[in-house]
Amino acid sequence: MLNFDFYNPTQILFGQGRIADLNKVIPAEAHVLMLYGGGSIKQNGVYDEVITALGTRKITEFTGIEPNPSYETLMKAVELIKQNKIDFLLAVGGGSVIDGTKFIAAAALFEGDDPWVIMEKRGNNVTKAMPFGSVLTLPATGSEMNNGGVVTRKSIKAKMAFSSRHCFPQFSVLDPTKTYTLPARQIGNGAVDAFVHIMEQYLTYPVNSPVQDRFAEGLLLTLIEEGPKALINPEDYDVRANLMWCATMALNGLISTGVPQDWATHMIGHELTALHNIDHAQTLAIVLPSMLRVRKEGKRAKLLQFAERVWDLHEGDEDSRIETAISRMQDYFEQMGVKTRLSDYQLGSDDIAPILSALETHRMVSLGEKRDVTLEVSRQVLELSL
Amino acid sequence: MLNFDFYNPTQILFGQGRIADLNKVIPAEAHVLMLYGGGSIKQNGVYDEVITALGTRKITEFTGIEPNPSYETLMKAVELIKQNKIDFLLAVGGGSVIDGTKFIAAAALFEGDDPWVIMEKRGNNVTKAMPFGSVLTLPATGSEMNNGGVVTRKSIKAKMAFSSRHCFPQFSVLDPTKTYTLPARQIGNGAVDAFVHIMEQYLTYPVNSPVQDRFAEGLLLTLIEEGPKALINPEDYDVRANLMWCATMALNGLISTGVPQDWATHMIGHELTALHNIDHAQTLAIVLPSMLRVRKEGKRAKLLQFAERVWDLHEGDEDSRIETAISRMQDYFEQMGVKTRLSDYQLGSDDIAPILSALETHRMVSLGEKRDVTLEVSRQVLELSL
Repeated sequence: MLNFDFYNPTQILFGQGRIADLNKVIPAEAHVLMLYGGGSIKQNGVYDEVITALGTRKITEFTGIEPNPSYETLMKAVELIKQNKIDFLLAVGGGSVIDGTKFIAAAALFEGDDPWVIMEKRGNNVTKAMPFGSVLTLPATGSEMNNGGVVTRKSIKAKMAFSSRHCFPQFSVLDPTKTYTLPARQIGNGAVDAFVHIMEQYLTYPVNSPVQDRFAEGLLLTLIEEGPKALINPEDYDVRANLMWCATMALNGLISTGVPQDWATHMIGHELTALHNIDHAQTLAIVLPSMLRVRKEGKRAKLLQFAERVWDLHEGDEDSRIETAISRMQDYFEQMGVKTRLSDYQLGSDDIAPILSALETHRMVSLGEKRDVTLEVSRQVLELSL
Repeated sequence: MLNFDFYNPTQILFGQGRIADLNKVIPAEAHVLMLYGGGSIKQNGVYDEVITALGTRKITEFTGIEPNPSYETLMKAVELIKQNKIDFLLAVGGGSVIDGTKFIAAAALFEGDDPWVIMEKRGNNVTKAMPFGSVLTLPATGSEMNNGGVVTRKSIKAKMAFSSRHCFPQFSVLDPTKTYTLPARQIGNGAVDAFVHIMEQYLTYPVNSPVQDRFAEGLLLTLIEEGPKALINPEDYDVRANLMWCATMALNGLISTGVPQDWATHMIGHELTALHNIDHAQTLAIVLPSMLRVRKEGKRAKLLQFAERVWDLHEGDEDSRIETAISRMQDYFEQMGVKTRLSDYQLGSDDIAPILSALETHRMVSLGEKRDVTLEVSRQVLELSL
């Protein structure tokens, strides 16, 4: 096991009816900026429950945080905060709203001319942030219980990640019933997103970390079992609860303790979203199967463990067990409604060079747990995903 | 899954050499009260490393916190704090030292005549506590990453538990190399303690919580695999690291999220320690096998899952699989050097009535996840443990 630090102070309020407890966890005198995306929270009752829970607190609203939240939009919220006396930020939505709120929380107190520098420095220059919490409506990114975010700057087609110790939500409310009305596409994307988060931390090389491995495998097995049920019966409480808790546990720092991490799939995926506006989870479903195939030798031991413990594969030679495991995973993504080939998104071989250029521009030229995913390896991965 | 709150702000600094990082996590100007037990930390190098890491900070020492820390001893530390200008408490040791430090942290700021009231109210009356951290030297209780403690008041032979949101360590340093010199008895006790902590949260009845179940099973499997290795080769770093992380994960609030909990075994065990000074883990090893046998019907579904997933038992009828699983667990405790019968500790049938009286005195008359462990059930459990 590698040395590690673990720190995660976010309080989780989990279960049906927990939005009412916002009244306990937000200061009574706070002027709250409520941030959300489109209008879905007004249709599923979340908006009304939040307003009721906030009671007599002064509320200002900021709406229109888009999927893959943009710097351009988020800076409007920062301006709103500076013009008003806002004490507390409340993100109501999925990972994009929460990611965006993290950036806003840091940017509002940033002592520099241009908060985009936060992204360029990946958050290392954040020394403080406004207090904020979240009400999660979409199980997927894990943003509700971590300190990271991804922000896109449209004007330069850059999608970048940052994190800071100061950017943990103080609390997150997870009410599984609030996911009942999500479109199937978002449930499918969410399950795939969580699945790939786990794989980025699990599928590297062995360092004798049985606790972390078994936690990761337990989460993968749960996603495999519960994901399809969530599509078939959207109002099964336990299924939605298990999916929600899985997605949170997938990226809260727990399963990455003391182990190497990959994240090459995410870095290539971010370019696909920035260039072609493909959903985040879709980009991961495109890239990961090929990534594992291309890097099979470096990941052999963990791929065999994945085949045995997650897919229950014990027969056949090593290479066939590995290929079957990757195929099963790919089938699972498809079963969740997430297509796994570039051609499914009308992209072809001509589109590969611009992706590689973008990776180069963003200095993503030595990715993965061994920093050996060069642009050439990324090219092989993308070609195999055609 | 049941509704739940999860909150755990303790920072973990894990790995070889991490004691040096005390310098980063304790305020530079703090007057530190360093609390420890006997002299073992002076023999294994921990004491010297801590003193070096604290650098120029003013240090006062409080030594002599005993296993099953006593109210009488801990109150001497509270006096010391009140007489000096102490800013920060640093517990250096195992669960007893850390538990004791939690009580001291709360008692030092308690606004009432007699801090024993904290124990009587199980910590619900704690509104603040001094800041503290820990350097863990013994993987066992999980106290390094939770907000609970157990304190014994010798004068009335009472051993009681408390917890408070204010009693999380700010940080805990976990350096597996510092466990190399532990006596085999303490390693054995530690593994059994962690095992039973997990069982108290896992072995109840199903509530459709696959993530929590698999996390618990992963921890149990790791203890079963790594525990015996730790006895055979005390200086295997990875084995000690895995054992240490297991024990921390066993009782940090994670695997209890959204599931029922038992704790009847612990409550009876506490009386055995208070009356007969039997090691905590030994009491658990005595009580748990009989507890599961006596309450087999109420726990049937989870016992079968335990048999299948933890002990890989698939053959034979249900009752035989359950009995085999319990026997294997009992064998594991014995393998770890922890005896599992009252008679192993020179206790006989005459000793049962006083234990039941103590349970009654402490109002432990309806224990377990269904509150159906009456004194009569406890009597059956103890008789089966003779």
